[in-house]
Amino acid sequence: MQRILYSLSGASGQHYSPHVWKIIMSLKHKGLAFDLKPVSFGDISSIEDGSYNSVPVLNDQGTLLGDSFEIAQYLETTYNDTPSLFDGDGGLHLSRFVESYCKTVLHPTLAVIAVMDMYNIMSDADRAYFRTAREKRFGKSLEDVYANRDAELATLPEKLNPVRDLLATQDWLGGEKAMHADYVLFGTLQWCNVCCADPFFAATDPVQMWFERMLDLHDGVGRKAVSEAVAA
Amino acid sequence: MQRILYSLSGASGQHYSPHVWKIIMSLKHKGLAFDLKPVSFGDISSIEDGSYNSVPVLNDQGTLLGDSFEIAQYLETTYNDTPSLFDGDGGLHLSRFVESYCKTVLHPTLAVIAVMDMYNIMSDADRAYFRTAREKRFGKSLEDVYANRDAELATLPEKLNPVRDLLATQDWLGGEKAMHADYVLFGTLQWCNVCCADPFFAATDPVQMWFERMLDLHDGVGRKAVSEAVAA
Repeated sequence: MQRILYSLSGASGQHYSPHVWKIIMSLKHKGLAFDLKPVSFGDISSIEDGSYNSVPVLNDQGTLLGDSFEIAQYLETTYNDTPSLFDGDGGLHLSRFVESYCKTVLHPTLAVIAVMDMYNIMSDADRAYFRTAREKRFGKSLEDVYANRDAELATLPEKLNPVRDLLATQDWLGGEKAMHADYVLFGTLQWCNVCCADPFFAATDPVQMWFERMLDLHDGVGRKAVSEAVAA
Repeated sequence: MQRILYSLSGASGQHYSPHVWKIIMSLKHKGLAFDLKPVSFGDISSIEDGSYNSVPVLNDQGTLLGDSFEIAQYLETTYNDTPSLFDGDGGLHLSRFVESYCKTVLHPTLAVIAVMDMYNIMSDADRAYFRTAREKRFGKSLEDVYANRDAELATLPEKLNPVRDLLATQDWLGGEKAMHADYVLFGTLQWCNVCCADPFFAATDPVQMWFERMLDLHDGVGRKAVSEAVAA
């Protein structure tokens, strides 16, 4: 039995799902080896028992799990002799607040900012799926969504103000070390880091300095783009 | 020796400092009795040893502390046989993120919304101090600040989206029970609840439903307005 993490990937194997990155980092945090298996949108419905419609999906030696937060909770409980992802119940519950912040404040903006960069790294089959699904969700063409990119990008620095304020007093969301809450925010920003050419923040911005520290963690796994390098 | 919490108060004794409410709730959470001593802006510089320029200030049987987060940490460490405010180190560090969210996202908006209501409950001496200090900070008259009240109020529901999203899966920020992070957000909103006539959210809004649960906690201390009732 082995451990397999299924990950949505671009045509050249780039892992760009924010939710998968949360689990890549959490598995590394706990020192758990895994195979990272790239999938396309079209593959998702046939992962394992066919019951999943999104990634990540983790097959942990026969135990199947979806939803990144549930996976993190499972890893914390199952591998309780490895470094903690939450540092106690308070950390578990408040990590959900970080998840809610990323979901409601950052994701809607990043979904606009990254829309064409995501499209451009996909296979032809995924492009067709993505265009149909996203144009339905947005109610307009990808190109019309992209027309708002600069306006959305201009709102991004202010939306990170809570993080910037926190980083004035501690190096990680988890205090003196990274924890799952860091990986939740990292995954969110890594999504765009993998897809988009330019960084969003100045090199001296505390958010960018934290992001660079995150990229250095776990043998710099966040700086690697393709499956073999990530899971190695 | 006794325990004294100094609290900025209106002319009729209304406690409206967000940061003091964080500590009122945290002391109640830990079952620690205290005297609540109302002060005006003019009184702050002569609290205890005269070294403080803001509230809360806590005199805990001779130990003096300012800054609400430092007080919460002190209470957690000193009274470690009472109910926890953080539920572990992870909860402590991520409570700071909730603090940063309140400070950077909610406070600037609430400071505009509540500006005239705060002014109206103050003593004449505090009104003069407040007008000078706030007009300098805002760079315009209180009345001109107040002119933006409706515009700021319109932004408030969206700014609570991370909280609303979290409350879809758990009753408290702390999970199955309130913790310091709940008190941080509660204090922020209680500031306006004490000053302003009308609630900001519909009765069916999960944020308002959580706020009502908070008002019920600890014998409904949040529903009480004056010193004797609060500390009793």
